Amino acid sequence: MAETHGRVKLLISYDGTDFSGWQVQTQAPRPTIQAQIEGALSQIFNQEVKVIGSGRTDAGVHAIGQIAHFDLPKPLREMDICYKLNRMTPNSIAVRRAWMAPEGFHAQLSAERKTYRYWVHNHRRPTALRCRYSAWIRYSLDLDYLSQLAKMIEGLHDFKSFQSVGTETVTTERMIYSATWRKRGSSLLFTITGDGFLKQMVRNLVGTMLEMNWKKRPVDDLLRILQEKDRKAALTTAPPEGLYLSRVYYPQELDRRCREL
Amino acid sequence: MAETHGRVKLLISYDGTDFSGWQVQTQAPRPTIQAQIEGALSQIFNQEVKVIGSGRTDAGVHAIGQIAHFDLPKPLREMDICYKLNRMTPNSIAVRRAWMAPEGFHAQLSAERKTYRYWVHNHRRPTALRCRYSAWIRYSLDLDYLSQLAKMIEGLHDFKSFQSVGTETVTTERMIYSATWRKRGSSLLFTITGDGFLKQMVRNLVGTMLEMNWKKRPVDDLLRILQEKDRKAALTTAPPEGLYLSRVYYPQELDRRCREL
Repeated sequence: MAETHGRVKLLISYDGTDFSGWQVQTQAPRPTIQAQIEGALSQIFNQEVKVIGSGRTDAGVHAIGQIAHFDLPKPLREMDICYKLNRMTPNSIAVRRAWMAPEGFHAQLSAERKTYRYWVHNHRRPTALRCRYSAWIRYSLDLDYLSQLAKMIEGLHDFKSFQSVGTETVTTERMIYSATWRKRGSSLLFTITGDGFLKQMVRNLVGTMLEMNWKKRPVDDLLRILQEKDRKAALTTAPPEGLYLSRVYYPQELDRRCREL
Repeated sequence: MAETHGRVKLLISYDGTDFSGWQVQTQAPRPTIQAQIEGALSQIFNQEVKVIGSGRTDAGVHAIGQIAHFDLPKPLREMDICYKLNRMTPNSIAVRRAWMAPEGFHAQLSAERKTYRYWVHNHRRPTALRCRYSAWIRYSLDLDYLSQLAKMIEGLHDFKSFQSVGTETVTTERMIYSATWRKRGSSLLFTITGDGFLKQMVRNLVGTMLEMNWKKRPVDDLLRILQEKDRKAALTTAPPEGLYLSRVYYPQELDRRCREL
């Protein structure tokens, strides 16, 4: 095993518009965020460096608080690693903070909870300057109705109906600590925190809630969709541009032992 | 002269990132906003329709409140012209409102004042999600110093030193009603209102103020630059992505006689 000089934890935000998502892929039509950061690190250290993220984000999805780690092949000494990475990656990727991670920290395996946000511009006219950063729904959404639906998602549920095909998981049960809709000017903001999320689960939940609102379906239909445990029961997948990975939570004890670089 | 059924005034916002500016150009590397709107109108009315904007914006510059007009070749009847235009133009162009304009209204010639805004993200780390919408300055800017400079721009001045080559104008004197710098979180916002602006004048003013701050030059240097009346006296041109055409003002009497569609 190669010698390592400690593990670095990174806080990263990105504008997902021009990327094929977080994860390195062969045959992706556009670059991926992970590949951009690995490429920059490999140049900085003059050898291949692998980066592990807290999880994937889809093509077009943004992040305010993605967390990733890599193992140092050489000591950092006085190097400002954030500065170097920001110089070597596109402006649509920002490495905001870096820490020496404590023993046992792993960006994906140590993550306890994640928060995602979804922005919906709800106005009869589009908004040019938010078009990359929110979905646009012309018809007037009902905040009370959506809030009732969000309440029903909270708790431990089997979200199989809201999982897109492609990634196998041991279980499709997830614990949702909170799910809320709030009004922000002419937009609605959905915020969801859970112990983990299935593939496209947030976009499938948001798309289903918005379509249920449009079709004026009874709120209990959401329970029925959950119970069917079949992707065909759920409705539309909301578009990626409204979605943000907002924050990844780790055990306090690991946070406390991080040392900022 | 072709028959006309009245003049329509449009309020338009756009994300300038993917456009070669407002104005139709032959050989522009990317589409222009004017060309997109003229194309949509020509399809709607099945004949060529020309659109006149309040003025040009450069490639990459955004607008919250661009104003334009066109003459109706056919009566509108019940047509929702905003809706049609928004369906036929990219999401990065939003036609927000439309009015029947009163006799004598002209988007460019009737304009009395314009307000531009310029956003600067001022932090040692970049911001991925604002990278298309603000300039990024790493070194700490001095709000008091910049405010002193802004104060010196107010009033009637010959801005020849801040005019980029390319467009001839009768006079290079412009009246600036107000110019301010304000702090907004980790950003600084420059707002300037004047009776008109020379080519790249706002970007040349902002770039010069920021460079003066960086080089710690005495505030009076700005007066000297104005007095030289030579583009070579001014400093950098700030990048387009921080700039927004915020509002165009018309005589109250013309505003009052607009009838919303």
